[in-house]
Amino acid sequence: MDSLGLMKNLSQVSPGKILLMVLDGLGGLPHPETGKTELETARTPNLDGLAAKGVSGLAEVVSPGITPGSGAGHLALFGYDPLRFTIGRGALEAVGIDFDLRPGDVAARGNFATADRSGLISDRRAGRISNEKCAELCRLLDGMAIDKVKILVRPVREHRFIAVFRGGGLGDGVTDSDPQQIGVAPKEVTALRPEAEGLAGVANEFIARVRKALAEQHPANAVLLRGFAQRPELPHMGELCKLKPAAIAVYPMYRGLARLVGMDVSEAGTTLEDEFKTLQENYNKYDFFFLHVKWTDTAGEDGDFNRKVKILEQVDTAMPGLKPDVLVVTGDHSTPAVLGGHSWHPVPVLLCSRYCRTDSVKEFSETAFITGGLGRIAATHIMPLAMANALKLTKFGA
Amino acid sequence: MDSLGLMKNLSQVSPGKILLMVLDGLGGLPHPETGKTELETARTPNLDGLAAKGVSGLAEVVSPGITPGSGAGHLALFGYDPLRFTIGRGALEAVGIDFDLRPGDVAARGNFATADRSGLISDRRAGRISNEKCAELCRLLDGMAIDKVKILVRPVREHRFIAVFRGGGLGDGVTDSDPQQIGVAPKEVTALRPEAEGLAGVANEFIARVRKALAEQHPANAVLLRGFAQRPELPHMGELCKLKPAAIAVYPMYRGLARLVGMDVSEAGTTLEDEFKTLQENYNKYDFFFLHVKWTDTAGEDGDFNRKVKILEQVDTAMPGLKPDVLVVTGDHSTPAVLGGHSWHPVPVLLCSRYCRTDSVKEFSETAFITGGLGRIAATHIMPLAMANALKLTKFGA
Repeated sequence: MDSLGLMKNLSQVSPGKILLMVLDGLGGLPHPETGKTELETARTPNLDGLAAKGVSGLAEVVSPGITPGSGAGHLALFGYDPLRFTIGRGALEAVGIDFDLRPGDVAARGNFATADRSGLISDRRAGRISNEKCAELCRLLDGMAIDKVKILVRPVREHRFIAVFRGGGLGDGVTDSDPQQIGVAPKEVTALRPEAEGLAGVANEFIARVRKALAEQHPANAVLLRGFAQRPELPHMGELCKLKPAAIAVYPMYRGLARLVGMDVSEAGTTLEDEFKTLQENYNKYDFFFLHVKWTDTAGEDGDFNRKVKILEQVDTAMPGLKPDVLVVTGDHSTPAVLGGHSWHPVPVLLCSRYCRTDSVKEFSETAFITGGLGRIAATHIMPLAMANALKLTKFGA
Repeated sequence: MDSLGLMKNLSQVSPGKILLMVLDGLGGLPHPETGKTELETARTPNLDGLAAKGVSGLAEVVSPGITPGSGAGHLALFGYDPLRFTIGRGALEAVGIDFDLRPGDVAARGNFATADRSGLISDRRAGRISNEKCAELCRLLDGMAIDKVKILVRPVREHRFIAVFRGGGLGDGVTDSDPQQIGVAPKEVTALRPEAEGLAGVANEFIARVRKALAEQHPANAVLLRGFAQRPELPHMGELCKLKPAAIAVYPMYRGLARLVGMDVSEAGTTLEDEFKTLQENYNKYDFFFLHVKWTDTAGEDGDFNRKVKILEQVDTAMPGLKPDVLVVTGDHSTPAVLGGHSWHPVPVLLCSRYCRTDSVKEFSETAFITGGLGRIAATHIMPLAMANALKLTKFGA
């Protein structure tokens, strides 16, 4: 039985409140000149104080050596095995713009592209059209009906959009129309299994109609679709954990991921201060809060070591005053500035509660947490640990 | 999805080179008088310097408490779950003499033995005949044909040989003829499943013909066969990891194991210096090197603590000058001199790379590595970690 099964069988309602604070891309790597990571460089007296009171460790998000995407990273933190529950590309893209993907919907990631007179693709990104142009074209294409299927089209950014096929009992499992190269025609969408025949037919008809609708829109006179996928069926956290969970996240992707596991999603403003304020305002209404801090990851992705340090210090300053029964501070993956992207390194995890059995760690850092009392754990075990510390799990076996 | 599946899905070609250096039987136990292990006794300034730069830990090869054989130990280091991919005794014996075991071959481990006049076994090892006598008898028996099956016979050492049944579409799954005791007749080989009927018949006919051929060869006038097994079907490392892998090993067993996972096998001479020279000569031709050092294990097996210490010091002296992008130094199992054999203790593992996130360990030893940044890992995760550090794995999930 995995974490989910155990939580489902053992969870009980208790008054304890849990705050899961995810600093996106939290872990780092040493700066070549100082030998210290972003966390070790930042002055973080409040986080260090929490580390002294709590119990710490390092979490493997997927497994050693594997770099997690954002979807996989968050599912693991919510307790869902990311190797078992995968989110298809189209579904993640829809989730990423906070689109309300419903059971039965099939979402595809789309590119506006340029086709030449003979129909061959000459630019897979239509010259990276502006966000405004993308939105205008999406409005033009949105709402088409083919048989019993309605096709919803929403802009993402530049040449990117999503097409969502709703209704008609469609099954997913079709190939891409995107040939992933230029100088060739888009591919026919074909079914990989009998249940997907309907979707393949509708998708090809949609692509043909779009070609006509975009005939005068050169360079954006064609579309390429890929990663057709339904919303993954994830058991809801409320049922599994007998929690009333809320998500506080500025960026749409993380609101979308939270919605997939059944969290209520609050309007969280645009800043860290807004997020903490939203937490305070909603504090009496829920007993589980997922609070997502995006900017640590953005700085890491930009390869900006110093900005990541500064953001960690800002987060540290914003921390005081939090007194949930269980506080977890961790990341969904590491994003070391020296790599400028997600990495495979395990993420620091700190758990504070009255019953956490503290260790001798006094500093919030990758190196200090190596000897923390949690040891090296799977990220999927963080939720059961948080639940246990909030006295929300009963005994296993008589 | 296990490590292999993840590597298959996520691996990409990169310029990084990986050196996996396996010190056979690396881990030890404290000397009763000094309280220090072989590693802790040896002066190893170069390995200690690497430990200070790299990230270390302890690896479980199979699982806690389980003592690995050489085949299982190496498969785990190559990323293959040793509980899933097992190598039958006959196949391992064939691999162990660098025999080119082909798909469809069935190999058995054989003993020359002594039978009395009534056919009962009086010595299971035929008085431990010499290597020369064994080779002579194998030449006598080699090349027999029974139905469409050709039987190849090769000497191993003393009374030990292999018999390989080639052709005729044989399936394995038969019982041993070796009764594992004296005073009884050899057993009839019987099929454990219908597909193995053919093999059982051919094996019994082979044993009968051998009795006649050896009639005048007392004390080696009979053979006992056991562990009939086909070559395990292991996906090749080149396909799984998009690597060009080479093996550098003086002892045939390890060349054979490397060949099973698709490595190119270089002639490596007879000494540690030869092995390092082979590495240098082949450095531009491959991007993955498995370099096997046997003598640490041999000293441990002989219960010779001081010799194991000395060999560790020799390895340390030979180390400088290596600058692969990723260097892993580990063992396939522990062989503590005080036990005089393989043991269940986890093996030290050190990984050095530009992106390894170092820890505070400054010494290459079992005790120091307890607090290493890799923590306690499964040996099957060493390959994904090495691949990640060489930037050869893409992100999991979008």
